[in-house]
Amino acid sequence: MRLRKIPNAEEILKNNQNYVILDPEEYKGGWNHFFKNGNPIHLEVGMGKGQFIIEMGKEHPDINYIGIEVVPSVMVRAVQKLKEETLSNVILVCVDAKQLENVFERNEVNRIYLNFSDPWPKNRHEKRRLTYHSFLTVFKNILKPGGEVHFKTDNQKLFEYSIVSMSKFGMEFKDISLDLHKLNIDGNIMTEYEERFHKLGQRIYRMEAKFK
Amino acid sequence: MRLRKIPNAEEILKNNQNYVILDPEEYKGGWNHFFKNGNPIHLEVGMGKGQFIIEMGKEHPDINYIGIEVVPSVMVRAVQKLKEETLSNVILVCVDAKQLENVFERNEVNRIYLNFSDPWPKNRHEKRRLTYHSFLTVFKNILKPGGEVHFKTDNQKLFEYSIVSMSKFGMEFKDISLDLHKLNIDGNIMTEYEERFHKLGQRIYRMEAKFK
Repeated sequence: MRLRKIPNAEEILKNNQNYVILDPEEYKGGWNHFFKNGNPIHLEVGMGKGQFIIEMGKEHPDINYIGIEVVPSVMVRAVQKLKEETLSNVILVCVDAKQLENVFERNEVNRIYLNFSDPWPKNRHEKRRLTYHSFLTVFKNILKPGGEVHFKTDNQKLFEYSIVSMSKFGMEFKDISLDLHKLNIDGNIMTEYEERFHKLGQRIYRMEAKFK
Repeated sequence: MRLRKIPNAEEILKNNQNYVILDPEEYKGGWNHFFKNGNPIHLEVGMGKGQFIIEMGKEHPDINYIGIEVVPSVMVRAVQKLKEETLSNVILVCVDAKQLENVFERNEVNRIYLNFSDPWPKNRHEKRRLTYHSFLTVFKNILKPGGEVHFKTDNQKLFEYSIVSMSKFGMEFKDISLDLHKLNIDGNIMTEYEERFHKLGQRIYRMEAKFK
C-alpha cells in the first residue's frame, strides 16, 4: 500500500477515537462487550483504505468487523470513509499484526480476512508475508477452533507461496479459486486494489482455509 | 484422451509383451527384481500416448518408469513410441488405476505422476477424478513414506478441486506453480497435451505434494 504520507496522521487518529482504537490492548478478551452483542468477530488484517471492511459491515449487520492496520497515514483514509457511514459494527484498530495476541484473547475471533497483502517478493523478506508461519501461529491462537482465513490476492507468487506455507502449517483448504472474477460470485466485496487490478484484466486468486 | 479406436488393439498389445505387461499382478512386490536393479520406481498414472514417460526414461536412466494406462487403443500409441527406443528402464502396464494395489506392494513406489488427467467436470463424476480420495488412498498405500505425487494440468477447475481434495486428505504441498511456462523450468518434460495447450496460450498448473 503506497500512499502519500499524511504528516499529521497520528493527530487525526487521536481526534477520531470513535472510529479508531489506539489502545486496543485494553479491550483484550472484551470485544463482544465493546460491541454490546454476542455476534461473531471478523478481522481484516492489513485493511488498507477500508472499502472492503466498511462494505462488509454494511452488508452483514449481524457480524462485528475490526479492521487492522499499522500505518497511520493509511488508517486515516479508512477513518475518513468510516465517518461517512453510521455503522455500530465496524471499528478500526491501529496495531501491528505481530501483536494481535496482545489485542485478542484465545478463541476470541471467528474469521480473518487477508486482502491483497504485501507480497514481499524478495526471499529475505519472507518473514514479513502475512502467510509466513509466525503470523499463522498468531492467527491460529486468536481464532476459535474451526475459524477460517479468507485470502485474496492478485499476486501469483504470493498465492503459490501461501498454499505451500499454509499446507505445511497443517491448514486445510475449503475452497480455492484461481480466477475469481471468471465466475460471478455473489457477495464478493471488492477492495480498492481488487477493482483496479480486475479492470486491468489481472486474475484474482482466492482461498478459504482453516486450522485443523 | 479422445482417440480413434484401434479395432485390434488388444491383439497388438499381446504381440508386444516386451513393452507392455498384461498380467501385472504377477509382479506385485517384485518390480525391482523385474528391472534387475534397486533404483526408485516412478509411475505415471494415465500416461496416454507415452511421450512424457519415454522422455523421462531417456533423461533419467537411474530411475525405473512404469506407465499405467487402462485403454488399450491409447496404450498401443505408447507401445509404438516405446518400440522406437532402446530403454531398459521403461515399461507399460495395462491396468485400471483403481487396481494399483493389486499390482504394487505397500511402499513399492517412490513417486506418482498425474499429467493432464481427465477432469470429469460433472459433479456426479467426482469419484472418477484421479485426485478423489479413493484414488489418493490407493496412491498412499503403494507409495513409500514421503513419496510424492506430481500433478500437471491445464484444467483450472480440476486443479482447484485437487488442492482442496488433497489438503482434506492430509497431504502437504511442497511446490505449486500456477503458470508453469511463465518461467523456464529446467527438466520439465512436456506431454502431448501440454505442448498443444501451451501453444494455445493456456496456463499449465503444476504441484508437488506428499502424504504426511
